[in-house]
Amino acid sequence: MEQELKSLWSETRELSLGSSIDRLDSAPSPLHFLRDYVSANKPCIISSSATRHWPAISNALWSNDAYLRHTVASTTVSVHLTPHGRADSVVPLPNKSLCFASACVRPMPFSDALDLITSSGSPTSPVVAYAQQQNNCFHEEYSALASDVDPHIPWATEALGCLPEAVNLWIGNGRSETSFHKDHYENIYAVITGEKHFLLLPPTELHRLYVRPYPAASYSSLSPITDGLRLELEQPERLVPWCSVDPYPPTNEAMDEQMSAFPLYFQGPKPFQCTIKAGEILYLPSMWFHHVSQTPDHNGRTIAVNYWYDMQFDIKYAYFNFLCSIEYPPTSEEMKNHDAHSPASDP
Amino acid sequence: MEQELKSLWSETRELSLGSSIDRLDSAPSPLHFLRDYVSANKPCIISSSATRHWPAISNALWSNDAYLRHTVASTTVSVHLTPHGRADSVVPLPNKSLCFASACVRPMPFSDALDLITSSGSPTSPVVAYAQQQNNCFHEEYSALASDVDPHIPWATEALGCLPEAVNLWIGNGRSETSFHKDHYENIYAVITGEKHFLLLPPTELHRLYVRPYPAASYSSLSPITDGLRLELEQPERLVPWCSVDPYPPTNEAMDEQMSAFPLYFQGPKPFQCTIKAGEILYLPSMWFHHVSQTPDHNGRTIAVNYWYDMQFDIKYAYFNFLCSIEYPPTSEEMKNHDAHSPASDP
Repeated sequence: MEQELKSLWSETRELSLGSSIDRLDSAPSPLHFLRDYVSANKPCIISSSATRHWPAISNALWSNDAYLRHTVASTTVSVHLTPHGRADSVVPLPNKSLCFASACVRPMPFSDALDLITSSGSPTSPVVAYAQQQNNCFHEEYSALASDVDPHIPWATEALGCLPEAVNLWIGNGRSETSFHKDHYENIYAVITGEKHFLLLPPTELHRLYVRPYPAASYSSLSPITDGLRLELEQPERLVPWCSVDPYPPTNEAMDEQMSAFPLYFQGPKPFQCTIKAGEILYLPSMWFHHVSQTPDHNGRTIAVNYWYDMQFDIKYAYFNFLCSIEYPPTSEEMKNHDAHSPASDP
Repeated sequence: MEQELKSLWSETRELSLGSSIDRLDSAPSPLHFLRDYVSANKPCIISSSATRHWPAISNALWSNDAYLRHTVASTTVSVHLTPHGRADSVVPLPNKSLCFASACVRPMPFSDALDLITSSGSPTSPVVAYAQQQNNCFHEEYSALASDVDPHIPWATEALGCLPEAVNLWIGNGRSETSFHKDHYENIYAVITGEKHFLLLPPTELHRLYVRPYPAASYSSLSPITDGLRLELEQPERLVPWCSVDPYPPTNEAMDEQMSAFPLYFQGPKPFQCTIKAGEILYLPSMWFHHVSQTPDHNGRTIAVNYWYDMQFDIKYAYFNFLCSIEYPPTSEEMKNHDAHSPASDP
């Protein structure tokens, strides 16, 4: 199966994706966007000319600390806390075994959240704060900022034939990192201040990320928050399938371990890599695996808004699920089973 | 692999295709067509309201024998001759072994072609004539008829962003049949007189058609044509991969053989089945397998025009090729190889 998979990887890149992500000088027409990107399941980056009419961009409102504090005022927002900036990712438990760790989610007044996001960007902070909630939070918690950006992306709405299912706001610092995962949405991702760095792998390359089941765990906060966080396994045990690869392990030793455990990732074709700057938009197609890190603005923050549009569960999705059903590399257990059922194994 | 493939077949149908082909009451908008059909790789049928402005439809010009003879006059056209109406299909050689047989292609004056097509619809005729040439023949051999239909399909041209690569005319009788195959084109298929009957299988179900290599052969005509045709293997041997399944074998005995040889086809989910009447259009998505038979008009002829648009070689095409690379059912040779390379086979 290895040869067939490698052909799939290289053919998808050679026929359709090319070696780097397309950059468009202006917002595409709905037909152009639908034909060349959504239908082809191919990412693109749209230049900041597409958002220059947004007050958040033209007036750089969200780089203005006083404006943000004044506008959102004492609204309570959800802040995700982790010890190192990695929420929803595979991390070691105290006993060294790996788990899938969710952040500790704490509601707090917006001003406190801003302070904590900025201060926790320092490597000595025992917690890293990331204001985000993937539940249409922009139109809920942050409604005071609603008129600073478009409520939807007109060319995407027309192309996809529907309004966004959710619009989310993300306020993080330089330590916040999102591990490789995929979403069941067409994603229009607009960076407002700072920069976001994406590693992207097409759905065809899912085996390179070694999706495996990890026991779910979550961080809970000690009191006060600055005392740090405690990681505990969920009881009863719940297994979450998640990408095993960490593309940026913290030490050389950890990198050696990653490279030896996950050769299909580290030895295969390079992930697509791009930086989205303030005002730019990334179209991140449904089911693409993405890893996100960020560079903050002068306030120590990166702010982005993303628009999730419903995807079509069409033949591409069925093909993807078929690919998921192919276990590779095979576990030795599976190879034994296969062998036991193979008529040719009975001489 | 059988379970994974069967899940792919059922999931594609359940999520996207449904149980019958969508019928649209009027020509779709380019965005609607692109989003819901081309991008999803899903067929649809468009009602005759989309072609009612074509003189060939509104004035039923092509059901008018005198009009056709007068208009095309003595132009020389290409006629495909076979003993039974099946060109480009798997048929037995005199020694019973199977080959891939191409028609005998004969240029003749259009009036003679029309006569032969009508007369060879009779089951006693030793040849069956089918006027067709998949080389943009409509704009070459049949240019006199060009103004009777649209030169391209405006909503498809706008959706796909290009003019048709080829427009082909097909004039057959009730015996002409096209065996299961696929094309690397988006196909807009308009029936002008008579009816076309399609069996359709999505690309995900390719294994159900048992694509296998057959030695190429071709018919050559004896003189006079009415003496019949001779089938001869090409020398040196050339193998053509082709679908093995004949959905309508001529005898009960042949049907029993088909059902026993090709259980994935005959026992699996039913192919999509549709009849396209005069004035209606079938959107036949790229890489879909199709089998075509026809019912003639009162002149004993079925006439259709199809517009081939370039397809996108995107992730869907890469997935399809990956699926093709999975040999199923495995040959015993392949199983032995697999077994020999499987570590688990060394106890």
